Amino acid sequence: MNNFVYYNPVKILFGAGQIEKLSKEIPSDAKVLMLYGGGSIKSNGIYDQVKIALENFAMTEFGGIEPNPTYETLMKAVQVVNDKNIDFLLAVGGGSVIDGTKFVAAAAKYQGDDPWDMLTKGAEVKDALPLGTVLTLPATGSEVNGNAVISRKSIREKLAFGHSRLFPVFSVLDPHVVASLPERQIRNGIVDAYIHVIEQYLTYPVHAELQDRWAESILKSLIKVGPEVLKAPDNYHNAANLMWLASMALGGIIKVGCPEDWSTHMIGHELTAMHGVDHALSLAIVLPGVMEEMREEKREKLLQYADRIWGIQSGDNGQRIDEAIKQTNYFFQRLGMKTRLSDHNIGKDTISEIQKRFKSRPGFDALSETGTLTPDRVKALLESRL
Amino acid sequence: MNNFVYYNPVKILFGAGQIEKLSKEIPSDAKVLMLYGGGSIKSNGIYDQVKIALENFAMTEFGGIEPNPTYETLMKAVQVVNDKNIDFLLAVGGGSVIDGTKFVAAAAKYQGDDPWDMLTKGAEVKDALPLGTVLTLPATGSEVNGNAVISRKSIREKLAFGHSRLFPVFSVLDPHVVASLPERQIRNGIVDAYIHVIEQYLTYPVHAELQDRWAESILKSLIKVGPEVLKAPDNYHNAANLMWLASMALGGIIKVGCPEDWSTHMIGHELTAMHGVDHALSLAIVLPGVMEEMREEKREKLLQYADRIWGIQSGDNGQRIDEAIKQTNYFFQRLGMKTRLSDHNIGKDTISEIQKRFKSRPGFDALSETGTLTPDRVKALLESRL
Repeated sequence: MNNFVYYNPVKILFGAGQIEKLSKEIPSDAKVLMLYGGGSIKSNGIYDQVKIALENFAMTEFGGIEPNPTYETLMKAVQVVNDKNIDFLLAVGGGSVIDGTKFVAAAAKYQGDDPWDMLTKGAEVKDALPLGTVLTLPATGSEVNGNAVISRKSIREKLAFGHSRLFPVFSVLDPHVVASLPERQIRNGIVDAYIHVIEQYLTYPVHAELQDRWAESILKSLIKVGPEVLKAPDNYHNAANLMWLASMALGGIIKVGCPEDWSTHMIGHELTAMHGVDHALSLAIVLPGVMEEMREEKREKLLQYADRIWGIQSGDNGQRIDEAIKQTNYFFQRLGMKTRLSDHNIGKDTISEIQKRFKSRPGFDALSETGTLTPDRVKALLESRL
Repeated sequence: MNNFVYYNPVKILFGAGQIEKLSKEIPSDAKVLMLYGGGSIKSNGIYDQVKIALENFAMTEFGGIEPNPTYETLMKAVQVVNDKNIDFLLAVGGGSVIDGTKFVAAAAKYQGDDPWDMLTKGAEVKDALPLGTVLTLPATGSEVNGNAVISRKSIREKLAFGHSRLFPVFSVLDPHVVASLPERQIRNGIVDAYIHVIEQYLTYPVHAELQDRWAESILKSLIKVGPEVLKAPDNYHNAANLMWLASMALGGIIKVGCPEDWSTHMIGHELTAMHGVDHALSLAIVLPGVMEEMREEKREKLLQYADRIWGIQSGDNGQRIDEAIKQTNYFFQRLGMKTRLSDHNIGKDTISEIQKRFKSRPGFDALSETGTLTPDRVKALLESRL
């Protein structure tokens, strides 16, 4: 096990009716900006619940944060923060709204020229507004960590940043929201959480007994619970399990002392930035290619994954790994995803463009936990997904 | 899954050489009281490492905190805190030193007549000194939670209390300490962690998919790693795994939304208070009795435990439960514990005294997650452990 520092101060309020408690979690004299997305919170009742819970607060609203939240939109929210002297941000939404709110929290206090530098140049987050979240979509785990992924429309880029100052002070998780979600969003959430775990697990072994088993626990639970939620999203227990699984997939506790990969995300982000492919879908397209291309580097963990997740015990090592990749792909397909690039009219031009971008962008020329996934190999693995 | 609030702000610094970083975790102008136990930190080198790391700090020492730390000793430390205007406590030791330090942290700021009221009368912890820990013994998990168990020698009582103000600000976990521990302490640590998990797991099912699997992950890992650590305590990977397992057993994350028991602890504490039995040993003596006595209330989880932990799939329900209890008891015995009361010269008098105490002490007349474990049943289960 490698040395590590673990710290996660997010207070999680989980369960039916927790939105009512919001007023006790925000300083009573705070000037609050409530950020949300396209307005689904108005049809599912969350908007009203939040407004009632915070009726005694000075509150401004900023709606319209899009899926894959953009720099362009978020900088308008920063303007509102400045105009209204906002001192607390409340994200009401899924991962996009929460990620966007983290960017606003950091950008509002940013002292340099352009807050985009936090994503491209590693400019440090020296200060940030406090933020809380009301989660409306179990998927990204953004409600329990200090990371965010932001897109910049003008240059079709999608990049990540993070800082311990960007942990939400609190996150409210009420599983009832799942019942009102479209099937596509539930499916995306299941796959997103699954691949978050894979990125932290499918590397090489470091004698991390518990971390391995905890990661496998999430995978096994998602395989069981995922299809059940899709079948009956109004079943509270299923919804609660999915919500907790998605949070724990990216709360940071399963990866302590372990190598991480994140290649699938780096590659998937490009498909989203260039073609608007849903985040989770982009991951489901890319992952089988990464597993195939990296099968030597990841051999030991792939065999463990084959055994413990899919119960694959027969065949030689190569056959077991083949079968594990096949089962993973089937799982995404059973949930309803089309996992080939050609299913989405994406062809060789895009692959060449990604190869080109990765060659020129710092840190992208040697992806994966071993640093051996070169732009040429990314091209090869994407071609296997055509 | 039940509603829950989860919050755990402890910063964990894990791994070889982390003690060096201590100076960055304590405010540089703090007046520090370093609390420790019987002096083993002087022979294993931890004392020197801490002193070097904090050479620029104003530091006072308080040694001599005993296993099962006593009110009598800890009130002397409170006096030192007051005399020296201490504003930061550093616990260097195992669960006893850390528990004791939490009591000192709360007692030093206690406004009522007697801090013991926090344990007997539920007097609220309204303020507490900040504390950090350097863990020297993986076992109790006290380094990652806000709970403590304190004994009062004069009346032979051992009681628990806790508060979110008593979370350590940070905890340093360097697995190298394991190599210098006596076999008995390692064995105790393994069993203590195992039974901490059991108390949070072996109740009744509430559709908590992940919580169940995470608890089972710790149990399975302890069954694998435990004997390996005892055989080779100087193997860093084994030691690191045991240390992380013991912390995660009582960090709070596996129990969220689930019922808890703690009967085994409540009964075990009496054996320690009355006869000085090691804490973990007291639990290993009592647990098989609780499993047997509560087999109807715990039936579903006992069957799940039999299947997932011990791979018991044959026989009727009763036979599977019998086998699971037997395997649990064997596990403790294989680690080197004698799990009968008579092995420790404890007889019927003690059992009657415990029955009597539980009848008169508030909250002890209806133990377990179902409130059905009466003092008379406690007597019966202890008699089965004679």
